[in-house]
Amino acid sequence: MPPRPAPSRRADYAHFTPITTRWSDNDAYRHVNNVVYYGFFDTAVNQQLIAAGALDLERADRAGLVVETHCRYFAPVSFPDRVTVGLRLAQLGTSSLRYELAVFRNDDDEAAAEGHFVHVWVDRASNRPVPVPPEVRAAVEPLRRR
Amino acid sequence: MPPRPAPSRRADYAHFTPITTRWSDNDAYRHVNNVVYYGFFDTAVNQQLIAAGALDLERADRAGLVVETHCRYFAPVSFPDRVTVGLRLAQLGTSSLRYELAVFRNDDDEAAAEGHFVHVWVDRASNRPVPVPPEVRAAVEPLRRR
Amino acid sequence: MPPRPAPSRRADYAHFTPITTRWSDNDAYRHVNNVVYYGFFDTAVNQQLIAAGALDLERADRAGLVVETHCRYFAPVSFPDRVTVGLRLAQLGTSSLRYELAVFRNDDDEAAAEGHFVHVWVDRASNRPVPVPPEVRAAVEPLRRR
Amino acid sequence: MPPRPAPSRRADYAHFTPITTRWSDNDAYRHVNNVVYYGFFDTAVNQQLIAAGALDLERADRAGLVVETHCRYFAPVSFPDRVTVGLRLAQLGTSSLRYELAVFRNDDDEAAAEGHFVHVWVDRASNRPVPVPPEVRAAVEPLRRR
Repeated sequence: MPPRPAPSRRADYAHFTPITTRWSDNDAYRHVNNVVYYGFFDTAVNQQLIAAGALDLERADRAGLVVETHCRYFAPVSFPDRVTVGLRLAQLGTSSLRYELAVFRNDDDEAAAEGHFVHVWVDRASNRPVPVPPEVRAAVEPLRRR
Repeated sequence: MPPRPAPSRRADYAHFTPITTRWSDNDAYRHVNNVVYYGFFDTAVNQQLIAAGALDLERADRAGLVVETHCRYFAPVSFPDRVTVGLRLAQLGTSSLRYELAVFRNDDDEAAAEGHFVHVWVDRASNRPVPVPPEVRAAVEPLRRR
Repeated sequence: MPPRPAPSRRADYAHFTPITTRWSDNDAYRHVNNVVYYGFFDTAVNQQLIAAGALDLERADRAGLVVETHCRYFAPVSFPDRVTVGLRLAQLGTSSLRYELAVFRNDDDEAAAEGHFVHVWVDRASNRPVPVPPEVRAAVEPLRRR
Repeated sequence: MPPRPAPSRRADYAHFTPITTRWSDNDAYRHVNNVVYYGFFDTAVNQQLIAAGALDLERADRAGLVVETHCRYFAPVSFPDRVTVGLRLAQLGTSSLRYELAVFRNDDDEAAAEGHFVHVWVDRASNRPVPVPPEVRAAVEPLRRR
């Protein structure tokens, strides 16, 4: 197997979303299950868009379709830990958008997990790609990795 | 159908657990799904026991088995709302424990949902009821409804 | 605490929905978590309505709002068990509908858990109660307890 | 963005796990949420190990730790669709194991989503890598991609 990259630190990320863990996040091994981290990613991405006024679920005729996600797990997290999700913009194309994300446990500076998340913006009626809407573009530009 | 009781207020509860909602909590109607409230209940009950030092998953030979849960839904909650779970002790028997819980949306004073949750304490090897452990008893006594 | 009713049997139910359990249904005690049973209930109720052509999420101006749910747990279920959810109609009012449900483990005849679930039908724009739609009424009439 | 590989077909996989979707799998866009696919992967991997007698949660001093997961999404799935998860072994190292997985919707022959999942086998007390246990090796060898 290829060598794994080292985990990032908080300073490598641009935006932070605090999330509380839940009893049911722990699996039979008493660690937050690998699946749950993608729920953290999804929450961070959408919460940032909503807070920036770039996502209105009731009225939007365009939606961000998730076409690819990925995560590497470095260290366990367990309920009732708090986590903070770091978010940064890695690529901004015509219709698509690649985010990078990290999950930090409690006050740890080193990521417990790290991954990416790709949105393609589509017209909801036709499901065809459209240019990333200007309000989304404006919302994510400040998330570029420093 | 019988008339429904009115929702409680924060002052009716003894202990509070803040929980962040997640994108996936919303269902096809864009409200936090009815199932998720029980995840809030479970989280509040176990987090209070862990914080009080009354629950050690790795070493305990006794466990709180959930034998009954109930919830009434009064008003919708939607991601990215924050919620606060109110917790109080309703009954403390020899082996069992009845909690009452409420979910408060953002800074609302009136409950969005309210229910109960019954734990029977059992020996984990035999699954037979045992007296509520003294450290659990000490942890929940301060949660009696005022 | 009041005495608990005995678990029902399959013959007490009118409609059955098979559901596969998932790895993440197991919690730290390695049993399907109490919360998950409500996901089974929700799935059985909505799947029956969809199969009967009584629920079209994309076009409906009316929705079944969940106002109350309840569950008693009798015996554990664990991944990778299969479960079957039994469903019956307990009450059909002007705007509301009370279902009773049971979860059967693998080929067991006695319920592992049993509860109820109340839908109030509302206009989705105003959120006000409306009469149970005729297609829903037709779909649930055959679910009356025998 | 780099070009995306085409979706695989059923014949490209060695083992199949049927899974029923749930009401709560659908998100606000009324498609099975991207997170849920990882729950399908986790379920398929662990169910195959359990069925082969290679995973005993109660007694094992060794565990498969998930260190990396990935998924590409090609086409939507929605409740109440059934899915079938295809599983194959991509790499078997000294301590680690790379699976490839695909999610097939209803009777579709082309994958709706496809990804990978890496287990490192560890000693549960020390959390240090150990050789893949012989019973796991025997269970996964028949899953090699054809």
